[in-house]
Amino acid sequence: MLLQTLYLSLAPVMAMYMSGQEIAQRPPLAIGDVIHGRGVARVISSRHPDYQAGDIVHGQLGWQTYRVTDAAEGERFYPFTATDLPPHLALGALGMTGYSAYCGFVDAGQPRAGDTVLVSGAAGGVGHLVIQIARAVGCGRVVGIAGGAEKCRLLQQLGCDVAIDYRLGDMQEQIRLACPDGVDLYFDNVGGEILEAALENLRMHSRIVLCGSISEYTRDEPFGPRNYTRLRRHEATMRGFYVYNHTAGYANAEQRMAEWVRSGELTPVQDIVDGFENMPAALIGLYAGSNAGKQVVRVHDPQE
Amino acid sequence: MLLQTLYLSLAPVMAMYMSGQEIAQRPPLAIGDVIHGRGVARVISSRHPDYQAGDIVHGQLGWQTYRVTDAAEGERFYPFTATDLPPHLALGALGMTGYSAYCGFVDAGQPRAGDTVLVSGAAGGVGHLVIQIARAVGCGRVVGIAGGAEKCRLLQQLGCDVAIDYRLGDMQEQIRLACPDGVDLYFDNVGGEILEAALENLRMHSRIVLCGSISEYTRDEPFGPRNYTRLRRHEATMRGFYVYNHTAGYANAEQRMAEWVRSGELTPVQDIVDGFENMPAALIGLYAGSNAGKQVVRVHDPQE
Repeated sequence: MLLQTLYLSLAPVMAMYMSGQEIAQRPPLAIGDVIHGRGVARVISSRHPDYQAGDIVHGQLGWQTYRVTDAAEGERFYPFTATDLPPHLALGALGMTGYSAYCGFVDAGQPRAGDTVLVSGAAGGVGHLVIQIARAVGCGRVVGIAGGAEKCRLLQQLGCDVAIDYRLGDMQEQIRLACPDGVDLYFDNVGGEILEAALENLRMHSRIVLCGSISEYTRDEPFGPRNYTRLRRHEATMRGFYVYNHTAGYANAEQRMAEWVRSGELTPVQDIVDGFENMPAALIGLYAGSNAGKQVVRVHDPQE
Repeated sequence: MLLQTLYLSLAPVMAMYMSGQEIAQRPPLAIGDVIHGRGVARVISSRHPDYQAGDIVHGQLGWQTYRVTDAAEGERFYPFTATDLPPHLALGALGMTGYSAYCGFVDAGQPRAGDTVLVSGAAGGVGHLVIQIARAVGCGRVVGIAGGAEKCRLLQQLGCDVAIDYRLGDMQEQIRLACPDGVDLYFDNVGGEILEAALENLRMHSRIVLCGSISEYTRDEPFGPRNYTRLRRHEATMRGFYVYNHTAGYANAEQRMAEWVRSGELTPVQDIVDGFENMPAALIGLYAGSNAGKQVVRVHDPQE
């Protein structure tokens, strides 16, 4: 079948594709390879029984404006079924980004009613969904961390009780002020010094979910949290989460997320840049924190 | 009451008492203070209704040959009830060291039948009990890490399938060879580079229990595990354990440990140095790894 790319996703993990390692079940990239990436596409023509011309699908497209594929083993494309909602949400709340937020926070984090929740990278693709899921499932105080006053306003609009601007410094003290009784559940998209600051503010039996570590993807030397032994005093748990281990939970995650979007309980924020030629700049922008919400690039207008 | 010290305990955490922090619920030490420490004592005379002359008790004595105390709030002394066993075991398998091993491994680690278990500091006070508990509760492969051929022989005598000598280097490869299918449950007494090597050898849904980090107590700068993000791929969990949070489990731990000692399933190894004047050297020896089993000092002979 021939696929026409409508939108492409940008995600912090992409810098790692160029690290020479196998990342996210994708082989390492060599010079000249097509960069891995998920996208939403329109089926232009198809001789595959499962796909018809005109279908909107999402899956692995790579950084390409068109793709020809036999959709063989490991090349599965998913129909975009929420036809009442914009298809770029397949790269946000209703796709892998949403599955990361839902499965990571709900399935791995096991939030409890009343929990004080702290989320780093809270204005990012996964983070801005997590803070809203925390609200939707009945957590108590929800605190988000982002960079800059504008993003902090966004976090408050999305339901954060407190938004912390990491650019103001002294994260340990800012978290202490925002969570005076400590943090029950820290959802970490960032790693580095913000993880260390969170470790200084744990409550008894608190949990940390390691979802991402954007601060480390572009570091030359990996960074270890020097105060990880703080887990001891509070019998706290740091748990790794990797969305590809949770395929069995995707359908439930998508259903719950779509319900919340339709009911207005969850507002997906999509940061849409126009033009395939802007993919590199938009990727670099992720590490500078210039996006708000999920970063996608419109490659072909779905209305045309 | 007047207590005559019979044995005093030495534990890696003691260096931390001199760090100026509150450690293990004990205030920071100043120059001239009595060093904190648990011990076993005989009651010489008592006007306290709960204690009689001749009783053997254990509790906080400090580094002292005698102690006068009113055994007031927070100064509780425990009777040594396993009178068929040597009283110095109150500083090993049947006291706080044993509670750390049992509550840390069983209650915090939640071992499952068949688990591949890795224990660092495996010839130490807590570690040598953990490897035997792992056997007793039906874990699969049990692998211990210690320093030197003599300690490795001890580990094999105590039931380890493989004993790893960290002095031979390349811990990551040694663990891989000893645990070819990876580690299900890593009980960490050590921290540092051995923790990093364990993180490279995790299985899916594996667990790390952080019980101690002897490699860090005498470091100038704290050390963060640079590969902690390895927890992600395997949905692994790193959990802190702090024995003083588990007081409700002490009685059960002591009962189980005493049963295993009596049945011969568990061999407590007590490294007994003679003479109060040898306390400092024995403490320093812990960090050099010169002890095998639990390090105690005999201050007064219980037979005299």
